[in-house]
Amino acid sequence: MSTRKPSANLEKNSRVKAVFDDIRRVRKSAFINNMWHYIAFDEDLLERTWADVKRVMSEPSEIEPMTKELIYLAVSIANSCTYCVHSHTAAARSKGMSDKQYAELIKIVSLAARTNHIANGLQIPVDDVFDADKN
Amino acid sequence: MSTRKPSANLEKNSRVKAVFDDIRRVRKSAFINNMWHYIAFDEDLLERTWADVKRVMSEPSEIEPMTKELIYLAVSIANSCTYCVHSHTAAARSKGMSDKQYAELIKIVSLAARTNHIANGLQIPVDDVFDADKN
Amino acid sequence: MSTRKPSANLEKNSRVKAVFDDIRRVRKSAFINNMWHYIAFDEDLLERTWADVKRVMSEPSEIEPMTKELIYLAVSIANSCTYCVHSHTAAARSKGMSDKQYAELIKIVSLAARTNHIANGLQIPVDDVFDADKN
Amino acid sequence: MSTRKPSANLEKNSRVKAVFDDIRRVRKSAFINNMWHYIAFDEDLLERTWADVKRVMSEPSEIEPMTKELIYLAVSIANSCTYCVHSHTAAARSKGMSDKQYAELIKIVSLAARTNHIANGLQIPVDDVFDADKN
Amino acid sequence: MSTRKPSANLEKNSRVKAVFDDIRRVRKSAFINNMWHYIAFDEDLLERTWADVKRVMSEPSEIEPMTKELIYLAVSIANSCTYCVHSHTAAARSKGMSDKQYAELIKIVSLAARTNHIANGLQIPVDDVFDADKN
Amino acid sequence: MSTRKPSANLEKNSRVKAVFDDIRRVRKSAFINNMWHYIAFDEDLLERTWADVKRVMSEPSEIEPMTKELIYLAVSIANSCTYCVHSHTAAARSKGMSDKQYAELIKIVSLAARTNHIANGLQIPVDDVFDADKN
Repeated sequence: MSTRKPSANLEKNSRVKAVFDDIRRVRKSAFINNMWHYIAFDEDLLERTWADVKRVMSEPSEIEPMTKELIYLAVSIANSCTYCVHSHTAAARSKGMSDKQYAELIKIVSLAARTNHIANGLQIPVDDVFDADKN
Repeated sequence: MSTRKPSANLEKNSRVKAVFDDIRRVRKSAFINNMWHYIAFDEDLLERTWADVKRVMSEPSEIEPMTKELIYLAVSIANSCTYCVHSHTAAARSKGMSDKQYAELIKIVSLAARTNHIANGLQIPVDDVFDADKN
Repeated sequence: MSTRKPSANLEKNSRVKAVFDDIRRVRKSAFINNMWHYIAFDEDLLERTWADVKRVMSEPSEIEPMTKELIYLAVSIANSCTYCVHSHTAAARSKGMSDKQYAELIKIVSLAARTNHIANGLQIPVDDVFDADKN
Repeated sequence: MSTRKPSANLEKNSRVKAVFDDIRRVRKSAFINNMWHYIAFDEDLLERTWADVKRVMSEPSEIEPMTKELIYLAVSIANSCTYCVHSHTAAARSKGMSDKQYAELIKIVSLAARTNHIANGLQIPVDDVFDADKN
Repeated sequence: MSTRKPSANLEKNSRVKAVFDDIRRVRKSAFINNMWHYIAFDEDLLERTWADVKRVMSEPSEIEPMTKELIYLAVSIANSCTYCVHSHTAAARSKGMSDKQYAELIKIVSLAARTNHIANGLQIPVDDVFDADKN
Repeated sequence: MSTRKPSANLEKNSRVKAVFDDIRRVRKSAFINNMWHYIAFDEDLLERTWADVKRVMSEPSEIEPMTKELIYLAVSIANSCTYCVHSHTAAARSKGMSDKQYAELIKIVSLAARTNHIANGLQIPVDDVFDADKN
């Protein structure tokens, strides 16, 4: 299904190995999911993507880890990214998402989609009170 | 900018008035934002949209009120809904979103968009471990 | 709001004039909406876009003219095209869309968006019976 | 391919059974497609989704049943929902869509996508005559 | 996975055969990819789609052939079109795209997605200097 | 139109000033477009976004500067990002895009959108020859 198959023995490349080792360390797991294998053909793409994911998703922040995953998952659903929906559903679960919370997430995402299409359909004008440039 | 201007004196219609009153009651505010004015030309559309928003966003749940708004906002950004981005940014703030959390939300949403496009670009196959039908 | 302003006196160009005249003839109206003015800087873009719109939307077909506009409008809402939402709402009305039908269209489009996000969120597998390649 | 496998014997749950029975009654068919199996893990999600689909798609209305399915299908194509494209192509056929009408639908949807991208690319301003707030 | 299986012996139809022969001639290859087989059930859809692809992608132009494919691929990624991502990645390679250029394309596309979501999230107003209607 | 107005005197903040100075240096222009003003409320968001844009768009690469802008613009059109369409149309022009090339870009982008919707509509299966995992 992919457009470019990963090489065998990716970790013979020291830059790739360094990133994979850091992923294992940060995630406390030996498992490296496909995303990282498939982008490893370009070390720069691998290093920078991981640096960004690590910083935004793993560093101390004022949004809870599970909440971050719910937001990530919501965007991935709206953008129709099959791979990301799967990997971030798994991530949200690993950070504590219950079945009940999962059902709620699906309800919020699908409600948002519903009102997004209503507002775009009617081209509802933004209330002045919401427009920062007018306040 | 809209495709259909709301009538004046919408609340002369008793079904519209009942919904507007309920919005005011639930939100503890006299303000009714444009969304509800613009969909009030069809009472059924108004009643059912509000019933759904009220249920999903205001009833007791296992996701925090502010988190719900962050998820809603994330979907609205991904779906390019100008109206919804404005109204749910305001809603998230009213439920406590700080500037720092807002900046984080933008970082998570834009990171998700970035990896969504990477995964869709390379058509990365879903890891077997993520696929519920294989487990 | 545009990225390229139309020249004045576009109809001095005979290829542009020919298209504009044909639009007026087919639509039985002197009015030429902005779309055609803004793409007229490239005659080929103008001619081919109009040829396609004319053929698909105006030639005899097995789908009713108003239904065609409803489909066109539905896609334009889902693709967040402000200009197209406005122009095709107007077109649907000129072909007979009532306020009640308009409200129904909005309900169908927003329901579809809702279930689209549910199905993409859960990555629901396609039933074998729907898959033409298996039948 | 899914993120959550349905339990076996879903209909042992009386709320699930009630919805499934209603689907069979309304659709006059014993077949329950995957959508309903996969969302049945949360009875509320199941009940409310079905209530909305039933009301919008099956109740008396001023848009023809097949036309409703064409609109639903158009949105599902634009939103890249594989599951929904399949299920609503099947539904449109069951309501009478011929191969010729199907080809026309594809032409209208793809023409709309084409002009959506032209208008968004050039950021064509909305004609005053289309803007309800100016009239 | 498709919604309509192609007939066997499509080329017995002379209109289909004429298009397939032209595809082979223009592309200098005997291979006809699935796209053309699956749309051949409607000769008009086949002929017009090919005419448009041939004209835009194969005729002399002021944008390089490989660049055209990169643009096509970028849109297909953003629109989540699995089939098109695959076929246009192959096309870009056949026109010379190296692995390094492919990695760069993925970086540009995903960076654009990132800033698209930032700008849509903050609803950043367009600078006057960019707006052609103000200049 | 924005959700958060930039402070006055942003450059009193030394981290903001450093980024703005670098933008001016790299772009050889005193002009700082709105994007950077509006994201400057969070220094980290500003610094990292600029670092990424600078690296991908300005560093030596195997894709031409104007081509990069065409790809960026194509994605921005498909993602319906008004701000980005405007700013990257301007950027493409500043790197040499002629009116004729602009018209071609619009034709390629809109053709891609057209075939994206055809392929998604028919759910055309990927040819084995395109699937790297099968080769």
